[in-house]
Amino acid sequence: MTEHAGVASDGPGRGRAGRRAGTSTTRAAIAAAAQDQFAAHGYDRASLRGIAREAGVDPALITYFFGSKQRLFAEVVELPADPRTVLAQVTDGDPAGVGRRMATVLAGILDDDDARVRFVAIIRSAAQSEEVAAALRERLTRDILEPVAARVREGVRPQHAGPPDEDAAKHEARLRAGLVMSQVAGMIFARHVIGLEALTEASSEELVRALAPTFQRYLAEEL
Amino acid sequence: MTEHAGVASDGPGRGRAGRRAGTSTTRAAIAAAAQDQFAAHGYDRASLRGIAREAGVDPALITYFFGSKQRLFAEVVELPADPRTVLAQVTDGDPAGVGRRMATVLAGILDDDDARVRFVAIIRSAAQSEEVAAALRERLTRDILEPVAARVREGVRPQHAGPPDEDAAKHEARLRAGLVMSQVAGMIFARHVIGLEALTEASSEELVRALAPTFQRYLAEEL
Repeated sequence: MTEHAGVASDGPGRGRAGRRAGTSTTRAAIAAAAQDQFAAHGYDRASLRGIAREAGVDPALITYFFGSKQRLFAEVVELPADPRTVLAQVTDGDPAGVGRRMATVLAGILDDDDARVRFVAIIRSAAQSEEVAAALRERLTRDILEPVAARVREGVRPQHAGPPDEDAAKHEARLRAGLVMSQVAGMIFARHVIGLEALTEASSEELVRALAPTFQRYLAEEL
Repeated sequence: MTEHAGVASDGPGRGRAGRRAGTSTTRAAIAAAAQDQFAAHGYDRASLRGIAREAGVDPALITYFFGSKQRLFAEVVELPADPRTVLAQVTDGDPAGVGRRMATVLAGILDDDDARVRFVAIIRSAAQSEEVAAALRERLTRDILEPVAARVREGVRPQHAGPPDEDAAKHEARLRAGLVMSQVAGMIFARHVIGLEALTEASSEELVRALAPTFQRYLAEEL
């Protein structure tokens, strides 16, 4: 990748960094510019040209590093909140309150314009392309699903009710995390992509009350 | 509409009923051809030209009757099952079993290749365009959400726990129907659009067991 060393820059408008930086800063500059452009213009209207301009690189380098706009999106799009922080917020503390904490986090995301818009963009882009869906599947599994499943096994779920063997316990923990993701994605989809009035007219408190027992059961009760 | 008098009338604005075949058969022929073509090729690859050819009409008539390919799709796409039949299957019978019946219907859809593919197409198309989302919002609300909400008020839900006044009861019934749709859409999205392994590896029976109590609470228990 030495042929690109000279173009490396540290990000939008920040000019070129020292030459030795090379590849990793070029890639980082593209990723940062892409995050800016996707956030500002949405997936459809953000262009590789615009991203390249902001990153101070040739558009061909984007293809070189990321393959396609879809792949770029799936790799760089920031989740509306750091999964580790959210995970800690939700799973630390009394297991009896894990469902309510999860519902509260989701209601907070739906109430926050920026976070909601980003989640909707993720859902839209996954629906538009198998390639994006595959990239997101990997990221969501690695960054959210597996950590949630691990936390479930470590004790969110009352020990006494666990399945008998190791494989069954893993399978069940993953299913629990998947069920939570299905309800989260479905609420964002039905309320903010389809825009069902029956859901948009509900207050945050109503949503938390309605969803908390669902998440509680998915995460910590007998399935 | 006079320029299309021979063929027109059931189209935008519905005007004149009762003219001989003309309009309504043209519109119906386009709708039938569109259903075929969307089913055979999917939303993206189905073309207005192909639909017009199958219907034996000029492509301009599609625009005349339906406005756009997106609108056409949203209006003609068949739900994988007749909402009235499904609704009766789910809401008739013992209220204590409504959640399990709903989960069983959903698992049946996910197990049926044709039905699943059609649902995935609906979800994809809604995510791709605000216009399709708006058209689907209307259809889903009219054909599914409101009938479910009405059934909830008629007695799926135990009478004694209903909210005090009429408006609150309506609002709650709509919220219940909306919650069910959010979990249905989210399961299809997470399992079949994103393709989360944690969910694809789960059997139908596991899904029914996991989802039944969720639907039971959304439809018939204290929220």
